Amino acid sequence: MNTAIFPGSFDPPTNGHMDIIERAARIYDRLIVAVLRNTNKNYMFNDEERVSMLRSACMGLKNVEITSFEGLLVDFARSKGSKIVLRGLRAVTDFEYEFTMALMNKKLAPEIETVFIVTSAENMFISSSSVKEIVHFGGPIEDMVPKSVASILRKR
Amino acid sequence: MNTAIFPGSFDPPTNGHMDIIERAARIYDRLIVAVLRNTNKNYMFNDEERVSMLRSACMGLKNVEITSFEGLLVDFARSKGSKIVLRGLRAVTDFEYEFTMALMNKKLAPEIETVFIVTSAENMFISSSSVKEIVHFGGPIEDMVPKSVASILRKR
Amino acid sequence: MNTAIFPGSFDPPTNGHMDIIERAARIYDRLIVAVLRNTNKNYMFNDEERVSMLRSACMGLKNVEITSFEGLLVDFARSKGSKIVLRGLRAVTDFEYEFTMALMNKKLAPEIETVFIVTSAENMFISSSSVKEIVHFGGPIEDMVPKSVASILRKR
Amino acid sequence: MNTAIFPGSFDPPTNGHMDIIERAARIYDRLIVAVLRNTNKNYMFNDEERVSMLRSACMGLKNVEITSFEGLLVDFARSKGSKIVLRGLRAVTDFEYEFTMALMNKKLAPEIETVFIVTSAENMFISSSSVKEIVHFGGPIEDMVPKSVASILRKR
Amino acid sequence: MNTAIFPGSFDPPTNGHMDIIERAARIYDRLIVAVLRNTNKNYMFNDEERVSMLRSACMGLKNVEITSFEGLLVDFARSKGSKIVLRGLRAVTDFEYEFTMALMNKKLAPEIETVFIVTSAENMFISSSSVKEIVHFGGPIEDMVPKSVASILRKR
Amino acid sequence: MNTAIFPGSFDPPTNGHMDIIERAARIYDRLIVAVLRNTNKNYMFNDEERVSMLRSACMGLKNVEITSFEGLLVDFARSKGSKIVLRGLRAVTDFEYEFTMALMNKKLAPEIETVFIVTSAENMFISSSSVKEIVHFGGPIEDMVPKSVASILRKR
Repeated sequence: MNTAIFPGSFDPPTNGHMDIIERAARIYDRLIVAVLRNTNKNYMFNDEERVSMLRSACMGLKNVEITSFEGLLVDFARSKGSKIVLRGLRAVTDFEYEFTMALMNKKLAPEIETVFIVTSAENMFISSSSVKEIVHFGGPIEDMVPKSVASILRKR
Repeated sequence: MNTAIFPGSFDPPTNGHMDIIERAARIYDRLIVAVLRNTNKNYMFNDEERVSMLRSACMGLKNVEITSFEGLLVDFARSKGSKIVLRGLRAVTDFEYEFTMALMNKKLAPEIETVFIVTSAENMFISSSSVKEIVHFGGPIEDMVPKSVASILRKR
Repeated sequence: MNTAIFPGSFDPPTNGHMDIIERAARIYDRLIVAVLRNTNKNYMFNDEERVSMLRSACMGLKNVEITSFEGLLVDFARSKGSKIVLRGLRAVTDFEYEFTMALMNKKLAPEIETVFIVTSAENMFISSSSVKEIVHFGGPIEDMVPKSVASILRKR
Repeated sequence: MNTAIFPGSFDPPTNGHMDIIERAARIYDRLIVAVLRNTNKNYMFNDEERVSMLRSACMGLKNVEITSFEGLLVDFARSKGSKIVLRGLRAVTDFEYEFTMALMNKKLAPEIETVFIVTSAENMFISSSSVKEIVHFGGPIEDMVPKSVASILRKR
Repeated sequence: MNTAIFPGSFDPPTNGHMDIIERAARIYDRLIVAVLRNTNKNYMFNDEERVSMLRSACMGLKNVEITSFEGLLVDFARSKGSKIVLRGLRAVTDFEYEFTMALMNKKLAPEIETVFIVTSAENMFISSSSVKEIVHFGGPIEDMVPKSVASILRKR
Repeated sequence: MNTAIFPGSFDPPTNGHMDIIERAARIYDRLIVAVLRNTNKNYMFNDEERVSMLRSACMGLKNVEITSFEGLLVDFARSKGSKIVLRGLRAVTDFEYEFTMALMNKKLAPEIETVFIVTSAENMFISSSSVKEIVHFGGPIEDMVPKSVASILRKR
């Protein structure tokens, strides 16, 4: 059984994340969406909230699990028996960061592969940080995040 | 009448900014230089000082107005009746940021276009942050910022 | 009156080109779409055919003219009284080529500005060459080129 | 069963290709290495030779098949029942080409995903064309291509 | 005598740094490794510790000196009689930063050249910040930093 | 004695090349400008003409030699006793090509370093091919190539 890990901050989850999750759910037997807990970062939502938002958004996807983790990604992947780390690649991605992480993880755990999926064109501009900025100024975010996330964002 | 908005932090204005402003003033009927007020950022100069420095530097340019704004850029552009957001593009620009913003703004306000002008070669390396670093260590900034800005920077 | 030149090979015109043309037609008083004649290049369509396809596709756009040119772009722009050269910028554009041309043209004609518009996300992957490749293998091109162009491409 | 297609020219196969093939063979149930036949390209080796070289190099890999194809990649993938197109990504890859192809194929066949694997660091500089150039001038290629390929290249 | 300056934070020194130092020591008569003291940055190691770690790691290299500096890099280079500033270039480098600094320094001190050396492939993914992250989570760093640095990192 | 090789096509030499040559002549004891002879390429000028144009342009530079070569660059560098290959880096350089060549040459000859110098801003847009295109259409090239080259180009 092919298990892939999709790690990220998901602060909050966006339609760009959902695009990757839905597509990955079709090509892998099991997909673990892994919410990063990093005590050095200032998140808008704590890890339980982020897990909960992803669970609502992924409700219809049978082979998708949501969990959180801290520590090295490769240690987490090994603990789950996964050989695949999945990342979304946008034309405007931070390549430097992605390449460094992929090669670093390869060094730490040669048996684990980082695979990239290209985000579909209409989601290419969506990022968690721009969503937060738009909602801060009262702009429309309905096309950018799952419905349940939009209503939570509005309340904050 | 063609109105373009040139938004930025201008902390402080540089010759790179002036290059874009002077060129844009020739191809648009009216140019609004819009100083961003963002309470989450630590500026060296407050928004009134930044507006004032730009006003001195743009004194000879008849069709250029200086103002400040906060909130979503597209809301500000609409309030001014402008369909054009102008950005300077350097070969060493942060493309990821610029593309994300351009596509995001297109989503928020489809009638507004982001247009990019390439900074002239001799100004390509000038940024507000490097100017601040140089002045901090007593280096020469006379070729990098307008005269009035240089004397203000020296005093700080 | 603001006149912009949109130069290109248009071999054939695509929905990506039409996207730029329609948006530019809204922010400039007059738009000249300029089909390049380059005797060193092997075009699929000759310059008269390319002009004719663009004319069909742009029929509803009152302030858009189609013509062809050869020689230096800046000489052509000057002959038309235009100070603006327009280029579409995709996240996957050949930046090297675009920057070199913009800076070169600035050197040749300092009064002319090259301005870039970001292609909308859904057209970002369309290029004349990939359209030609797809039609060669009988693939569907209906969403990628104007209708009149599609039927001409099918006949070839 | 997870079937992935790894398309390419493989003219000739290099250790960079073998790196991707071996890693993909571990994370997919079945891997089809698909040699492109393109009558418009000048290959050093014809498609039968390229298939044969890959077969020798992949001999120990049970779940890897080698074949050739022409036409649209997505048509080929569908004919094989594969939902996954695999590409190697180097830090020095031609991103423009890869992104355009990935988004184009997504448009042509929404059910097929292009996934990228990052080439390992030590193979990052190897390309078929540089191998051909080195062998042309009598330079050493033993670390760059599979053994069987090296001896064939030496004979040419 | 050819003197080159290799400036950096070295917080901590990595095998990527050592790679550049060893190679530069072969092509320049004298190499000054210059540890940046920047009171605005939060370092893990203070400047004396960083100088000391580099001294241990460079012990066998006769023509390499280690020192620290603050202020403008070009002022430091001039004080040392050096016309060459050396930087490592990775395929995943922050080009924007490197180009801006190189052109800025050229403006400040036209007689000083910034030269770049490409980091060897196997060190391309190593950065001080990822080393710190790995050691924080108890991951293996032995292949990423000099031995003496590894033991100091373990103790923190 | 520090000997550096500056290889290229120089078809024709430009002010961008001269910029690199003059700066390299100041930081290396001896600079060999090496004109590539490649029988597979269509040059505008044959190798003797290119060598001759460079000799005129470099007349005042005592420590600069001009010669031509064919074959592997690292073999040529070794035959000259040089450990340094010099390349100009523009913000708009073809990085893919430069990185691949640098890493490839490192593999072929570990003792030879490729070092990059950043072209000064005002020469960043000049390339041999654009110069040829401009001269073809009668445009001004006086600021882009050495004087002696300009007059030869005009005659063609």
